[in-house]
Amino acid sequence: MPNYSAEVDAVLRALADPTRRAVVERLAKSPAVVSDLLASFSMTLPSLLQHLRILEDARVITSNKQGRVRTVSLRPGALDVLHLWLGEQRTSAERQADRLGIHLARATSKEN
Amino acid sequence: MPNYSAEVDAVLRALADPTRRAVVERLAKSPAVVSDLLASFSMTLPSLLQHLRILEDARVITSNKQGRVRTVSLRPGALDVLHLWLGEQRTSAERQADRLGIHLARATSKEN
Repeated sequence: MPNYSAEVDAVLRALADPTRRAVVERLAKSPAVVSDLLASFSMTLPSLLQHLRILEDARVITSNKQGRVRTVSLRPGALDVLHLWLGEQRTSAERQADRLGIHLARATSKEN
Repeated sequence: MPNYSAEVDAVLRALADPTRRAVVERLAKSPAVVSDLLASFSMTLPSLLQHLRILEDARVITSNKQGRVRTVSLRPGALDVLHLWLGEQRTSAERQADRLGIHLARATSKEN
């Protein structure tokens, strides 16, 4: 396993909840203040804050408080680690498909 | 939310467990028989089968039984839905970064 494993785990666990995923989709469009997020999602403030804390602990979002207004943003490059992990799995799988293709091509050429 | 939302949820939940993610990493290299997987992972057969069931329900892996030997494989394109979702979030975030860049460029040119 690569050494960024813990980071991938944290991001996957953070995104595995539909509400948190919806928050990420919302924040990918623009940063938002907590009260606006609360209006968009039908849940209590403590529940929303708990979801935001998990996303922040996984370094998916960042938050910034000015006076009584807390603004949350998607952290730039937050999802890169997951993109990288996915790329690695696809590369392996594609290499596997390539080898199969080469094997089949050879088998076919021998038959002819 | 896009209509493939449930599919993204299932894949994310399936991958959010470190053991299941390790199984996916293993299967990305090549298909494997269950007894070999069991030897690679320090867990009981029922635990492994439970993890495989979750991965299969999420359509991440497929399995095929011949006699008493069950072989599991990564389903081709299994992770594409997650790749697509990630791409959408990155695109939004990049558009946001572009707008910020344009805004800053305009602000700077006005200052000069």
